Amino acid sequence: MNNFRMDNISWIDYERRVQSGAVVFLPIGATEQHGPHLPLGTDALLASAISEDVAKAIDGVVAPALSYGYKSQPKCGGGQHFCGTTSVDGATLIAMVRDAVREFHRHGVKRLVLVIGHYENQWFVTEGIELAMRDIGPGAELAVMRLEHWEFVKSQTLDKIFPDGFPGIALEHAAVIETSMMLHYHPQMVCLDQIPDHGPAEFPVYDMYPTRTEWVPATGVLSSALGSSADKGKLLVTDIISGIVQAVRFEFRLTP
Amino acid sequence: MNNFRMDNISWIDYERRVQSGAVVFLPIGATEQHGPHLPLGTDALLASAISEDVAKAIDGVVAPALSYGYKSQPKCGGGQHFCGTTSVDGATLIAMVRDAVREFHRHGVKRLVLVIGHYENQWFVTEGIELAMRDIGPGAELAVMRLEHWEFVKSQTLDKIFPDGFPGIALEHAAVIETSMMLHYHPQMVCLDQIPDHGPAEFPVYDMYPTRTEWVPATGVLSSALGSSADKGKLLVTDIISGIVQAVRFEFRLTP
Amino acid sequence: MNNFRMDNISWIDYERRVQSGAVVFLPIGATEQHGPHLPLGTDALLASAISEDVAKAIDGVVAPALSYGYKSQPKCGGGQHFCGTTSVDGATLIAMVRDAVREFHRHGVKRLVLVIGHYENQWFVTEGIELAMRDIGPGAELAVMRLEHWEFVKSQTLDKIFPDGFPGIALEHAAVIETSMMLHYHPQMVCLDQIPDHGPAEFPVYDMYPTRTEWVPATGVLSSALGSSADKGKLLVTDIISGIVQAVRFEFRLTP
Amino acid sequence: MNNFRMDNISWIDYERRVQSGAVVFLPIGATEQHGPHLPLGTDALLASAISEDVAKAIDGVVAPALSYGYKSQPKCGGGQHFCGTTSVDGATLIAMVRDAVREFHRHGVKRLVLVIGHYENQWFVTEGIELAMRDIGPGAELAVMRLEHWEFVKSQTLDKIFPDGFPGIALEHAAVIETSMMLHYHPQMVCLDQIPDHGPAEFPVYDMYPTRTEWVPATGVLSSALGSSADKGKLLVTDIISGIVQAVRFEFRLTP
Amino acid sequence: MNNFRMDNISWIDYERRVQSGAVVFLPIGATEQHGPHLPLGTDALLASAISEDVAKAIDGVVAPALSYGYKSQPKCGGGQHFCGTTSVDGATLIAMVRDAVREFHRHGVKRLVLVIGHYENQWFVTEGIELAMRDIGPGAELAVMRLEHWEFVKSQTLDKIFPDGFPGIALEHAAVIETSMMLHYHPQMVCLDQIPDHGPAEFPVYDMYPTRTEWVPATGVLSSALGSSADKGKLLVTDIISGIVQAVRFEFRLTP
Amino acid sequence: MNNFRMDNISWIDYERRVQSGAVVFLPIGATEQHGPHLPLGTDALLASAISEDVAKAIDGVVAPALSYGYKSQPKCGGGQHFCGTTSVDGATLIAMVRDAVREFHRHGVKRLVLVIGHYENQWFVTEGIELAMRDIGPGAELAVMRLEHWEFVKSQTLDKIFPDGFPGIALEHAAVIETSMMLHYHPQMVCLDQIPDHGPAEFPVYDMYPTRTEWVPATGVLSSALGSSADKGKLLVTDIISGIVQAVRFEFRLTP
Repeated sequence: MNNFRMDNISWIDYERRVQSGAVVFLPIGATEQHGPHLPLGTDALLASAISEDVAKAIDGVVAPALSYGYKSQPKCGGGQHFCGTTSVDGATLIAMVRDAVREFHRHGVKRLVLVIGHYENQWFVTEGIELAMRDIGPGAELAVMRLEHWEFVKSQTLDKIFPDGFPGIALEHAAVIETSMMLHYHPQMVCLDQIPDHGPAEFPVYDMYPTRTEWVPATGVLSSALGSSADKGKLLVTDIISGIVQAVRFEFRLTP
Repeated sequence: MNNFRMDNISWIDYERRVQSGAVVFLPIGATEQHGPHLPLGTDALLASAISEDVAKAIDGVVAPALSYGYKSQPKCGGGQHFCGTTSVDGATLIAMVRDAVREFHRHGVKRLVLVIGHYENQWFVTEGIELAMRDIGPGAELAVMRLEHWEFVKSQTLDKIFPDGFPGIALEHAAVIETSMMLHYHPQMVCLDQIPDHGPAEFPVYDMYPTRTEWVPATGVLSSALGSSADKGKLLVTDIISGIVQAVRFEFRLTP
Repeated sequence: MNNFRMDNISWIDYERRVQSGAVVFLPIGATEQHGPHLPLGTDALLASAISEDVAKAIDGVVAPALSYGYKSQPKCGGGQHFCGTTSVDGATLIAMVRDAVREFHRHGVKRLVLVIGHYENQWFVTEGIELAMRDIGPGAELAVMRLEHWEFVKSQTLDKIFPDGFPGIALEHAAVIETSMMLHYHPQMVCLDQIPDHGPAEFPVYDMYPTRTEWVPATGVLSSALGSSADKGKLLVTDIISGIVQAVRFEFRLTP
Repeated sequence: MNNFRMDNISWIDYERRVQSGAVVFLPIGATEQHGPHLPLGTDALLASAISEDVAKAIDGVVAPALSYGYKSQPKCGGGQHFCGTTSVDGATLIAMVRDAVREFHRHGVKRLVLVIGHYENQWFVTEGIELAMRDIGPGAELAVMRLEHWEFVKSQTLDKIFPDGFPGIALEHAAVIETSMMLHYHPQMVCLDQIPDHGPAEFPVYDMYPTRTEWVPATGVLSSALGSSADKGKLLVTDIISGIVQAVRFEFRLTP
Repeated sequence: MNNFRMDNISWIDYERRVQSGAVVFLPIGATEQHGPHLPLGTDALLASAISEDVAKAIDGVVAPALSYGYKSQPKCGGGQHFCGTTSVDGATLIAMVRDAVREFHRHGVKRLVLVIGHYENQWFVTEGIELAMRDIGPGAELAVMRLEHWEFVKSQTLDKIFPDGFPGIALEHAAVIETSMMLHYHPQMVCLDQIPDHGPAEFPVYDMYPTRTEWVPATGVLSSALGSSADKGKLLVTDIISGIVQAVRFEFRLTP
Repeated sequence: MNNFRMDNISWIDYERRVQSGAVVFLPIGATEQHGPHLPLGTDALLASAISEDVAKAIDGVVAPALSYGYKSQPKCGGGQHFCGTTSVDGATLIAMVRDAVREFHRHGVKRLVLVIGHYENQWFVTEGIELAMRDIGPGAELAVMRLEHWEFVKSQTLDKIFPDGFPGIALEHAAVIETSMMLHYHPQMVCLDQIPDHGPAEFPVYDMYPTRTEWVPATGVLSSALGSSADKGKLLVTDIISGIVQAVRFEFRLTP
């Protein structure tokens, strides 16, 4: 049993940890196509796995992930026309986050980290936090950190993994970064032989609605995942875990 | 790898199953105190495990669970004053379910089963389905079944498990039924030695707000879980699985 | 004139009563088919009549009923396919109740009882109270009781009225209990010769959407109302009135 | 029994009437202070009584009134600081009306009249209708009339009742018009000896928030009700009934 | 540069003015047909121009106008069937106003004036203020004035402008008052030669939905604008400016 | 008079343009601190000016700007603690955009461009468009382009303007790009002598709530605007205008 997972421990164990100042992590993912080689749950699985690794390092607690995210956009997730992509309205995600933050505050949590694993979630999660903080009112002891885990990858690591130059996080949907991290955490869910071999998608700087599905490769992969490996995954994850641990310790004044 | 779980398979595998008429299951649980001996995730864990067993029997697909449910009420879940109980507003749960049903419809799913594992969820899930069906409009091919898994336990089984008489599902929060089923599915998460030994809670037929926390045992257990066993869990689960399988086959015209 | 009804008295009379600690009752009914022999307003009429009888006993005040309830479900009210059934969305009922509770609090009411006369209302009324109490904030002197009036019928009375065994409250829609109580309160609205003579409806333990209208008798009556009488109605009402009076006195510390 | 009231008849009677083209009336009132001499329910009582008189004349049906209206404003209803005034948010009233109109449409109602008895309701009722019509979509056979009953009083009648000049409908809250109409319909609820004897309230052309409660007479009466009589009430009601009957017949193409 | 406009000055200039007690004005208009001779922005343009003139007189600040208003109604704005009329739902306008008032309060503004230039906005603006004041809570120093600018025109002025009798503000949409005021403020946007020459629209005292577009002149002008002039505009504007200045000085205790 | 502005022309002129296929532009800005040297309206002013320049080039129409945007975030706009920054909730901006798009569709607009001038708006505008498109339904002829104007600046231009390297758009709040463009369009609103001379703000990759106001320079300027000039503004604007014109012509199949 993984006793860093909130859903695996009793309320009495949870309360004890909260009262001793434990940091609580809420992974926020999506159920979204990730090409023919990665599973639909990739975003929630990675956000959860990263949260657990960080929690282990600092004796934190990981709450159950929000598994459904904001609507997939063509330029970062392929778009809403894919079968399997299962998204919620902006208002729904805002409400989920607001309610969750409010509840953690009621528990007495003082250090809360929202770990986003789906690019499209960021602004609705931000609004959920803003509304919860307004409801909680000034003077509360709760501090919330919101992060996108891929932001903690160091530029040296990107240089190593992309010797020909990093194409940018926007095109990294179901590509080398996510595939390598899944090979690190959940290799049995990755079908390496299904990785499509086509060049990267090209997008204009604007968006069109109804979305132009012809802009998006039929596979759902925005740039090739060829060259992914568990080793690269480990490099990436190492940056992310150590980066988050450091940020959390610094902002929440934890003694290492 | 469990290939009945939607979050573990690629969108292409999922699409193939949906197009061949697979039944999709959405477990809807809660994060709620379940006494000192059961984990906070009990409701979502049981709804997910049952959904997977049913899916295996009929080649279905299980979507990621909704892990946060409607506010815990004193008489069926202990109430909102417990640390760890993490609930959402009625409007939030309604919206989550509405969005999810709408998305499964977009995928082409024709047979959808919402498996409720938390008593307080029922009416908000119902409204979520009602709103989604209104949005989808008449003439759609989607049919949705909503069920509470414990309703499938046969009376003969209850007679066996409760030879002195079944106290009623209302008081079964964190008691013999849930504990036995957790011993069947997740024995490593059950702390048998933490089961409190106190008589059942007694409630009037009405409710008071602010809730009367003194009505609820401090442990959060509404009637004793003593006497729980994996064997009893198996009996219960067997009824539930076979009952749901039969209902699903009948209503969705599946050939066994 | 009935001077226990809030809508029949002036604000000055109302204020005087509130300031002297009067209990305020809010009946919450529905406009819903009740078979060919009972009127569409049955749920609101019964909740109002019961509230008035209780108010007379303890010098309370009855606010105007909410006459439109949550969507009728096949297994407890026949379903939304009947002409005449006029229901509101869950969010609407939640908002109505939240607003009303907030206003009674502003008036200085300290003892408020919500009397539910429509089974489907319960959870949305609960959420309305929860939201109002959150808005009002901790420390307020308002206490709210929520009740379903039929819960106060004693088992001995059910034994008398159903010598062959009580079929359960679920099937009691437009059946012996409601018909007898209407014969007690509003005999001129009951058409005894219109009572249909068919066996009880049978429902599975799950629900289907779109609702299976073929599960529901075309009359809208879920089990026969034959054998209803004003005498039985009096028995039922006597239990209910005395039960509510006792509960209210106890919880609100009234001296009889 | 009044068989023009929807809540007093069975769904089968109601359906028969709707199918034969009956006009349905929905009274929309308020629970609001009306001075020391009129009851809190005045607005809903008058809207209901007028609706019933019109329904009798044209074989229509009157649905249960909405008894809670939009927030009372100082210049037309005294304001929200009075005890007993029980109002709902704009969004709540909008939702109530939208839901009701949608349901009447589902019943097959083609002629619906919303009878407003509370000045502050008008725009939120309008929005409720607008939203329902949008939901129903173009091409529906439902036509809705929205009216404020006092608008049907003829200027000759006003001249008779106010020989010194009509002070305007704005100040008629709890004054001669409402008091006279209540004396006509519900004389037992009017306390003539409680009518305050003070000059009319004077208001600037703008509004201030928080509301300036000092602008409003402490009695809640905006201009004196002295001189009210059942005879005047009959004059007013006669205009209103005949005016609405004529409008309804004309707009809905009824043959008298 | 017009340094009374909030959008033209820096936050530091704005803060200095707010801290010295400056009155802030928020014009609330519409984008709505105003006949063939007036521009679509008339309501926002007039509300803004008037706000600026008042601000100049008392050293106030004018915030950017809300340029989209509540749905145009046939009897006061022609209705929603006109091309160019661009309206928002009631809930949207309520939210815009609530958010704006909340923000001005956060800035430390103590004197806020909402200047309405579109008849249909009034009640939704009122609700927006009510909700903001509830959120802000009792004890705040913010006072808000809400006004419709045309209400400040003196009866003597109307007598001068309408020697044959004032037809009432209801029919003044795109007619003499608005046209004259636009000739005063924005003569280059008025096409005098496009003024239609038809008699006034006639409306019953009730409304019908779907709206009866045949009630409304095809031009969108409810009564003729012939006879409009910049001189009349100046007369009207003079009344309005001086009236608002006086009201603001009085209510906000400004020393002239 | 600028006859490319929708609010300056009559509905008949607007209708004629829409019917001939004109592209409609909706600028979406903010009211937000932009340092001591730029006005609070910068975002809406720039989005409007750019929209007008593009409209002139292709005979389009510019609708009135949305002048209030989503909440300012520390890392891109300084944050909500500044006086003068006047923001709306996410739900409010979503609703505004949804309503506007729906209305332009009703007008018969087939080519709509939303021009965003405030970084924080992007995702809420996206959701507003998504909701409007869902309401409008499939098969509609309306196509919507959403763009952030700064995305059209070419890399060669950035190289010219930032010979020492472009610090990234994130830090460009109230810095060289915005200041130069304001010097191009509205030089009289720029106070060059107020430009603060401090180094750029440094932010971690995560965010904290309550926001860490100490991360943000007290001036509100995220990186220095020194070196701004109207010439640089012209270079930037030229890229943006030509880029948008080209994109609009291409996507909407306009013949130049």
